[in-house]
Amino acid sequence: MRLRWKSCLIFNHIVVSFSSVTHPPFNSRESYADKHVLITGGLGFIGSNLARQLVQWDAKVTLVDSLIPEYGGNRRNIAGLEEKLRVSLTDVRDHEALPGLVAGQDYLFNLAGQTSHVDSMTDPETDLEINCRAQLAILEACRLHNPDIRIVFASTRQLYGRPESLPVTEAHPLRPVDVNGINKQAGESFHLLYAKVHGIRSTVLRLTNTIGPRMRVKDARQTFVGVWIRALVEGRPFEVWEGGQLRDFTYVDDAVSAFLLAAANDGAIGEVFNLGGPPPVTLRELADELVALQPGGSYELMKFPAERKKIDIGDYYADYGLIQNRLGWRPQFTLSQALENTLAYYRKELPHYV
Amino acid sequence: MRLRWKSCLIFNHIVVSFSSVTHPPFNSRESYADKHVLITGGLGFIGSNLARQLVQWDAKVTLVDSLIPEYGGNRRNIAGLEEKLRVSLTDVRDHEALPGLVAGQDYLFNLAGQTSHVDSMTDPETDLEINCRAQLAILEACRLHNPDIRIVFASTRQLYGRPESLPVTEAHPLRPVDVNGINKQAGESFHLLYAKVHGIRSTVLRLTNTIGPRMRVKDARQTFVGVWIRALVEGRPFEVWEGGQLRDFTYVDDAVSAFLLAAANDGAIGEVFNLGGPPPVTLRELADELVALQPGGSYELMKFPAERKKIDIGDYYADYGLIQNRLGWRPQFTLSQALENTLAYYRKELPHYV
Repeated sequence: MRLRWKSCLIFNHIVVSFSSVTHPPFNSRESYADKHVLITGGLGFIGSNLARQLVQWDAKVTLVDSLIPEYGGNRRNIAGLEEKLRVSLTDVRDHEALPGLVAGQDYLFNLAGQTSHVDSMTDPETDLEINCRAQLAILEACRLHNPDIRIVFASTRQLYGRPESLPVTEAHPLRPVDVNGINKQAGESFHLLYAKVHGIRSTVLRLTNTIGPRMRVKDARQTFVGVWIRALVEGRPFEVWEGGQLRDFTYVDDAVSAFLLAAANDGAIGEVFNLGGPPPVTLRELADELVALQPGGSYELMKFPAERKKIDIGDYYADYGLIQNRLGWRPQFTLSQALENTLAYYRKELPHYV
Repeated sequence: MRLRWKSCLIFNHIVVSFSSVTHPPFNSRESYADKHVLITGGLGFIGSNLARQLVQWDAKVTLVDSLIPEYGGNRRNIAGLEEKLRVSLTDVRDHEALPGLVAGQDYLFNLAGQTSHVDSMTDPETDLEINCRAQLAILEACRLHNPDIRIVFASTRQLYGRPESLPVTEAHPLRPVDVNGINKQAGESFHLLYAKVHGIRSTVLRLTNTIGPRMRVKDARQTFVGVWIRALVEGRPFEVWEGGQLRDFTYVDDAVSAFLLAAANDGAIGEVFNLGGPPPVTLRELADELVALQPGGSYELMKFPAERKKIDIGDYYADYGLIQNRLGWRPQFTLSQALENTLAYYRKELPHYV
């Protein structure tokens, strides 16, 4: 048993984690120090947490974000980092801008996306522009202007649709249940195709529910947990729909580790990996745990709204054995730690997120 | 054993086919007489053959085609029908035009597509615009302006990628090997999603190699068989790459029957069906059969060009049992009949296609 590199990520959190994984530690600073790193969706939840780590490691970071109010970008997410990185207020749908952005970069963390399943059904064309068409344009820009770049693409469990069996492995059939899932599937497929046919060094991570500081809490466009957290901090009851569905949760620092590992590892090129988390819980168990952590917290059990029922996927939790075996990644944070850290952040920061 | 409806389709061909299938005959004329039918890609190969049948049945047919020179549209395809249908020279990428086109239609045969695998790799964004983005726009136009329309979408075996097992059923994993396959998969998924979530009555047919009169023979953008036919009729040897790959072929009149059956059958809504053909042959067997049919015909065996090898799928042939069981469709034409009819057409018509 030994202290892993993960511990350096979390010195500003309340936990220090130890791991008995025997894979060689990932020498992160060496892979990223003085390297040029582009993050699309960089002012968003995961993008900004990634940027925070990369800045600590002396990477030369450029964030691309459109700051569309309905999406995840928020200037507060880079509070204290403003002088240590560059921000380009560009929409990835601006295809003309892409070659200039990707040229000269060593890494691209490709996280820009429209994440709302409901919005993808009411405005499917915008979802397509961002999650499908812009992804192809980004890859074309890389192929033509920077074919040696290393890319990690943020995909989603949503591609699996309603699981046939649990836990869900990467071999599970892909059957997206909404426009967002179809477009993300195309975006993911483009990344894998460009690896296979054009030799672009890209990797796909299929994320499950990711939670932590800097997530969107204004509404449920990124994750329903955001709305719960906000209600808790504001002292209001939150709504739990149905409540029996099983879900797994990745703490954002664990997600960040996976992105950093994947981009720096040749064994990840052209591969798809699930992320996962601590053992899954029902939504009701999650709600109970949150309520226990926040004095005065409460929730109401509700029936599923009809228009959501159509695109709900039932129970889901991932098998993350593949990335564990291949890259040595595994979740380092318990669900309680993740929830505590998230609540602690928003108790202080909520005014900047609503 | 009894004469099936198919026989009325083929009175102008050299064969009359009988069938022992026990499904009730499909009363086609009744389903389509006086009905408004829109065909995207209507001046193309399958679209124009479909139009020919529909006009015979007194349907009110509108063809939508962009007549882009690299695609399948050709005014010659509707020779003799000009006064019996309407042609709208519209590109399906012109999203503003779509509501006006779909409004008031009873049926939509959605065949507009970019079909070249090679072009999809060199100009992936155009492939996306047509095969993915325009498909979503067409469905949105239907949802908003004509939710009762019946749609059949022309998909492709290309979605299966390199088959894991043969014959390929609809349950085979989808692993497209080129940009065209990824975009067609998204286009197909949108059609199925709109059936499931929005109640749009759409059906997907996954076509294999379709051959017959009015196919593109100028180059291999639609099918390699076109190039072979042209060379044969012009008295030049054609190239056979590798030669050992197994393929199945659907005669265009059989494909037309499948579209007509699917659109008029409630049991097809929200379903995906493979089309297939007579028993598969190797490319070399196909070449031998063609050469035997055309006096002076010859071919050369070649190695696979490197850039094609990357996106080749190996052997392929479909299991069409599902559409046979559910809709009573099966191929009525032998491969020899298909090749004879095709050669006969181009011996006379070639000048209009090169």
